[in-house]
Amino acid sequence: MIRNGEVSPVEVTQAHLERIEALEPRLNSFITRLPERAMASAREAEREVRAGRYRGPLHGIPVGLKDLYHVKGVPNTAGSRIFHDFVPDADSEVAARFEAAGAVLMGKLSLDQFAAGIAGQHSPDYGVMHNPWNTDLVAGGSSGGSGSAVAAGQCVLAMGTDTGGSIRAPASLCGIVGLKPTYGRVSRRGITVFSWGLDHAGPMARTVEDIALAMNVLAGHDPKDPTSADVPAPDYTLALTGDIRGLRVGVPREYFQVPVDPLVERTVRAAIDRLAALGAEVSEVSWPMYLDTTDIGNTIHRCEAASLHWELTRDRGPEIHPTVRGMLEAGTFVSAPDYLLAQRARTAFTRQCLDLLSEVDLLAGPMEPVTAHRIGDTEVRVGDAVLGSSPALTQYTRPFNLTGFPAVTVPCGFGDGGMPIGLQLAGRPFDEETVLRAAHAYEQATEWHHRRPPI
Amino acid sequence: MIRNGEVSPVEVTQAHLERIEALEPRLNSFITRLPERAMASAREAEREVRAGRYRGPLHGIPVGLKDLYHVKGVPNTAGSRIFHDFVPDADSEVAARFEAAGAVLMGKLSLDQFAAGIAGQHSPDYGVMHNPWNTDLVAGGSSGGSGSAVAAGQCVLAMGTDTGGSIRAPASLCGIVGLKPTYGRVSRRGITVFSWGLDHAGPMARTVEDIALAMNVLAGHDPKDPTSADVPAPDYTLALTGDIRGLRVGVPREYFQVPVDPLVERTVRAAIDRLAALGAEVSEVSWPMYLDTTDIGNTIHRCEAASLHWELTRDRGPEIHPTVRGMLEAGTFVSAPDYLLAQRARTAFTRQCLDLLSEVDLLAGPMEPVTAHRIGDTEVRVGDAVLGSSPALTQYTRPFNLTGFPAVTVPCGFGDGGMPIGLQLAGRPFDEETVLRAAHAYEQATEWHHRRPPI
Repeated sequence: MIRNGEVSPVEVTQAHLERIEALEPRLNSFITRLPERAMASAREAEREVRAGRYRGPLHGIPVGLKDLYHVKGVPNTAGSRIFHDFVPDADSEVAARFEAAGAVLMGKLSLDQFAAGIAGQHSPDYGVMHNPWNTDLVAGGSSGGSGSAVAAGQCVLAMGTDTGGSIRAPASLCGIVGLKPTYGRVSRRGITVFSWGLDHAGPMARTVEDIALAMNVLAGHDPKDPTSADVPAPDYTLALTGDIRGLRVGVPREYFQVPVDPLVERTVRAAIDRLAALGAEVSEVSWPMYLDTTDIGNTIHRCEAASLHWELTRDRGPEIHPTVRGMLEAGTFVSAPDYLLAQRARTAFTRQCLDLLSEVDLLAGPMEPVTAHRIGDTEVRVGDAVLGSSPALTQYTRPFNLTGFPAVTVPCGFGDGGMPIGLQLAGRPFDEETVLRAAHAYEQATEWHHRRPPI
Repeated sequence: MIRNGEVSPVEVTQAHLERIEALEPRLNSFITRLPERAMASAREAEREVRAGRYRGPLHGIPVGLKDLYHVKGVPNTAGSRIFHDFVPDADSEVAARFEAAGAVLMGKLSLDQFAAGIAGQHSPDYGVMHNPWNTDLVAGGSSGGSGSAVAAGQCVLAMGTDTGGSIRAPASLCGIVGLKPTYGRVSRRGITVFSWGLDHAGPMARTVEDIALAMNVLAGHDPKDPTSADVPAPDYTLALTGDIRGLRVGVPREYFQVPVDPLVERTVRAAIDRLAALGAEVSEVSWPMYLDTTDIGNTIHRCEAASLHWELTRDRGPEIHPTVRGMLEAGTFVSAPDYLLAQRARTAFTRQCLDLLSEVDLLAGPMEPVTAHRIGDTEVRVGDAVLGSSPALTQYTRPFNLTGFPAVTVPCGFGDGGMPIGLQLAGRPFDEETVLRAAHAYEQATEWHHRRPPI
């Protein structure tokens, strides 16, 4: 409609700014709002489209960036007041690509401190993040602002980062789609690092097609990011055929050997049955090392974060949220040989997953074992178990930070209190196309993505 | 001559077996000798050549493997009695390639325990290694048997491994040529690991041409070795043009800011002058982080070795040589964040080296700061300083284990007591050709490689 002049980017941006204005007191999706910059971009987009210089599907589209994507001249807090006066002098690669695509930047989105996913355990320096489906509940972490902004219609598209689940957890809890692409697929240059071997940048949106359109802009080699992979990027929209006949979908039995809410399990199993009804060949598979995910992941993550942030932890410890500080300091008590054992276990873990993905095309299962919990709760009930909220919420996400393989969450129903449930689909390295194809086929066959939060 | 039938592989092998028989009481180059297997191989090679099935330049050539290259059915001790009854059931990739090339395996060569380069500090389980130029002095470590066997004419060619200098140190001290190829260039499959991020496999021989011929067999991708690089391998003999006019050779000034014997320095500077006389453009360059080599290298090496060998250290500690045990245990006291800091420093170190290698084609300098020291000495005098023998002997070698870049040592003169001195030439990743071209041109312009030890 923007391309055809049926809608102006100015109208679209104005509508979203009004939504931001109306909902921010209850959601707190943003750390920094940029209404004037957004309107200027929208007017520029309007001029360009009218002059026949339409740049593509993101032209004039309101987007948000988690507040650790550097944008030249805009403060970048990483969720901590320690960095309140840090103003980057260069754009992150993602911000530059969005700008080149004509996207309208609405602001910088809320997150857990340093992107440490401890949703609900803390009161961040920039206020708590609320879930648009029920503002007493968490939006999820660490990209909670990205989740709530997209779910509540404050942005069409938002970027998150995912070290242990920080894109997929808030996307799932807020009832939207979130993609953690393959490690190396989307440039991390100019993004504040939390754990260099586990961090991923990726998009969050309300539909799989929007994710595909975003990936068409985001994916591709960045020679200035040493972790960026030189792998050609396809046109992701071409993958959205709606046809998953013959697609081999594996369901690891170990997914249901860990605590999971019974209603979540029923809902996710029903979603997998739906995939089968659409022609997928569903089978149970076994991934024994899945059960070691937490030990391997915690060790690597904490050590890398401790190494990266040791000066900060030493010099500014009291200004860091105690739970985050504890995570950062925990890594200092791990020995180097133990860290290396975890890395070696990670290699075996990844190979086991890759072997599975030679038998099946995708792995399917729950995105989270529970729906969103109450803000402030540090423990959650999961079936018969009571778990720390952070271990519970990373149970299904973290495996694919360790492997680096692509994984998407797509809404698949609602649990207690009407809170969203997500289906996770994970695929082979650099095969985001199959992941998105299956998510899109499921989405188009169901109605979940049409539901909007009552806010 | 073998190809033309002027010499038979049987004669060649017999002559080398006699040399082994005669010299082993004084050198101890071998842990396991394989005279019957060698003669059988030689007779087979003779038959093949006579039948017109000449396999190439290694056909019928006596070779030795450091006793951590697995050979099916032959004991593999890694220099420790702990493994005296380990008999591999498959060949290492290198052993398989040598066999396919028709080489004659003379035996498994002596090494420091687990390839820990502590030459002269210890009495290995399988006896001390002696230098053919003076049997009171060390052959160098850890591939000391490979160095002495080649220098003394017990083998034409031998394989070493190099974690911190273990190919180049014995090659230099024994007056032969030794190449540490680029990390990933030669498969390590089936080689007992010491430090997976630093270990390199490579050849040792009396001339650069022999090294090139060996590399023609050794280099190339091994899909079954996850650290093997999928980079095409050239014909290395084509690189040996003898022409180095215009080649840019940099001499890091930091090489002479560490302790180095004055006669070694004069000899190496004269060798570099010779490169200039041959048409190379020699310039002084600066590599500031070279001075951090030891801190970075020791941290990474010890932690990886500790992680790899922790069960051995725990269960069999008293059976390990105390110095080696100390090295293995030292890594357990390093924290994971400190290990990661060392890895990050290594990245900066490598980039600094790569930047230098955009200005020049090669880096030249001493291979060792001293000539071979007395067996049993744990300290060596280097100019005005007294250093531990292990830190002294890794001063110039270790930088290229950290970068992974190729480096060769070529004989360039003799020091006190008539002991050999080596010139080190290091180049860009996967550019062994330039390294070998320069080493060959220097060798052909001098007479050092014609000198033989008086044994």
